Amino acid sequence: MKARSILLNSRPQGMPTQENFKFTEQELPELQEGEVLLKALYVSVDPYMRGRMSDAKSYVAPYNVNEPIVGGIVAEVVESQNNQYKKGSIVEGRLPWQTYSISKSDDLTIVNPDLAPLGYYLGILGMPGLTAYFGLLRIGEPKEGETVVVSGAAGAVGTVVGQIAKIKGCRVVGIAGSDDKVKYLKEQLGFDEAINYKTTDDIKAAIESACPNGVDIYFDNVGGEISDATYGLLNNFSRIIVCGQISLYNATSQPTGPRVEPILLRTKSLMKGFIVSDYASDFGQGIKELAAWVQAGQLKYEQTITEGFDNIPEAFLGLFKGENTGKQLVHVADPEKE
Amino acid sequence: MKARSILLNSRPQGMPTQENFKFTEQELPELQEGEVLLKALYVSVDPYMRGRMSDAKSYVAPYNVNEPIVGGIVAEVVESQNNQYKKGSIVEGRLPWQTYSISKSDDLTIVNPDLAPLGYYLGILGMPGLTAYFGLLRIGEPKEGETVVVSGAAGAVGTVVGQIAKIKGCRVVGIAGSDDKVKYLKEQLGFDEAINYKTTDDIKAAIESACPNGVDIYFDNVGGEISDATYGLLNNFSRIIVCGQISLYNATSQPTGPRVEPILLRTKSLMKGFIVSDYASDFGQGIKELAAWVQAGQLKYEQTITEGFDNIPEAFLGLFKGENTGKQLVHVADPEKE
Repeated sequence: MKARSILLNSRPQGMPTQENFKFTEQELPELQEGEVLLKALYVSVDPYMRGRMSDAKSYVAPYNVNEPIVGGIVAEVVESQNNQYKKGSIVEGRLPWQTYSISKSDDLTIVNPDLAPLGYYLGILGMPGLTAYFGLLRIGEPKEGETVVVSGAAGAVGTVVGQIAKIKGCRVVGIAGSDDKVKYLKEQLGFDEAINYKTTDDIKAAIESACPNGVDIYFDNVGGEISDATYGLLNNFSRIIVCGQISLYNATSQPTGPRVEPILLRTKSLMKGFIVSDYASDFGQGIKELAAWVQAGQLKYEQTITEGFDNIPEAFLGLFKGENTGKQLVHVADPEKE
Repeated sequence: MKARSILLNSRPQGMPTQENFKFTEQELPELQEGEVLLKALYVSVDPYMRGRMSDAKSYVAPYNVNEPIVGGIVAEVVESQNNQYKKGSIVEGRLPWQTYSISKSDDLTIVNPDLAPLGYYLGILGMPGLTAYFGLLRIGEPKEGETVVVSGAAGAVGTVVGQIAKIKGCRVVGIAGSDDKVKYLKEQLGFDEAINYKTTDDIKAAIESACPNGVDIYFDNVGGEISDATYGLLNNFSRIIVCGQISLYNATSQPTGPRVEPILLRTKSLMKGFIVSDYASDFGQGIKELAAWVQAGQLKYEQTITEGFDNIPEAFLGLFKGENTGKQLVHVADPEKE
């Protein structure tokens, strides 16, 4: 079986270009016990991948030059030597940018093609959606009438957090980095308020004004000064979900700031870090509920689909030109067995 | 009914003296609906009261000059116009230093004189013991074989935290501020290790060496640099109980330090503040279990009892001369109805 791959050809300086990618072809070996042969159907391209193309110290390991880029992919099991994954199953996992690949991972998630379009399993029914779902519901435990603040609100996780919080009857305030995003959150996704932190002089005053009853849940994708501003508004028994700290990831020394412990003590609040795989045993239930909300129109989700394996680098580069609306995917192939 | 009171006569400069206290006598008014007349039996004197005698900004409101000192007292209900508290009941609460006082509080806790000596309800079966009990068990959820680090380990809360953690089968490491305390924790209370942070050059290295399997639970009474050192040793899914931040209480500006959120995210850990009254509805159950451990000799507890209402100031002043071993109380009177 021949497979085409997209390798990291060179590390980008500034904006990435087509030159940073290289297409190759290779013959795949025979399947061994425990392995599956996977045919890529949908490939996710994400802004975070730009970080992995550099070798700067970051929160994820860098890609290696002359090795395939790896990311979220929905694939079909076309041959199997692994009882967990039957031939014909559709799976989602971290996989190389290849038309076909061999995996011995047991981290592949089997997806149900009847619940939603397959591409959704890379977004709202995939890692970002499940991250929002479990972080908000299991750690945040939102109650009707509570106020939820979300940082990184226009991102793949933040948009779902805010909409689930609305479903649960909360007041939802999003913090994002452009007027377009603020408009999208309020007009398309039903956020009660949204704040452009880049054009706001006093972020604490802005959050305070948007949260007249204080903050009960803070879903944090960003960290740093936006968090400091929000902490000052926490109600008693509030919950802080530490999902991401993107504002700190590129720090070269240990970031410092106001200590949060005295605030947690005074407000008797809870703060918890997590990664989505902490809830892996409940993914099935999460996907089912998310899919039901999508089908009922309660959870809005946008994706832009580019056609063809050869166009993956172009779709990736387009992310930085604002060409996509919502989640950007590439459709590579259809399942052999529908 | 006449009552004698001890008022704050003047704010101490440095070490408090007898001059800072004033004895008065007053006639108590008739009981109103909802009120109880209380006879003081045991009075708690505590180091934290020194802070309340100053008017410096602190975590508790200062006492007022010419008003009675208020603190933990075990008292007998000698008359009642309140259905919650029957005549003859023994209660514990925040009460004025008076031989008799009138209370309309519904925050009095009824105590069981058959379970333990009455003075215990101001210590191991009172606020400090219950703080240790609920903080460790409800937030920390200790499991056999886990490692628990306690700061402020030799204090009224810390000594109980460590001993309960031992009962639960944990490795217990205490951090305290003198060699005598370290010796007491290890030799008398069965802590596995104890560290004198005042004589340790590298506190992180000392904790690391005492915790070869990392830290699963950190019960924090102190905050600041001891916490920073401990955070670096947290295992995945660890729990940080924010009980006190005494190292920060006297700061005049907002304390800063290394941000903890990236560590919580990386280790998927939980951090929670609380005060003991969050668990008020379960106090009865907590007291019962603590009393059983005391009776079984699994929970060691020391107290020093001074005799007589007139000697309350002296007992308080003695705290700062190291005259007491364990919890210092004053015995004021015996119950009328035994």
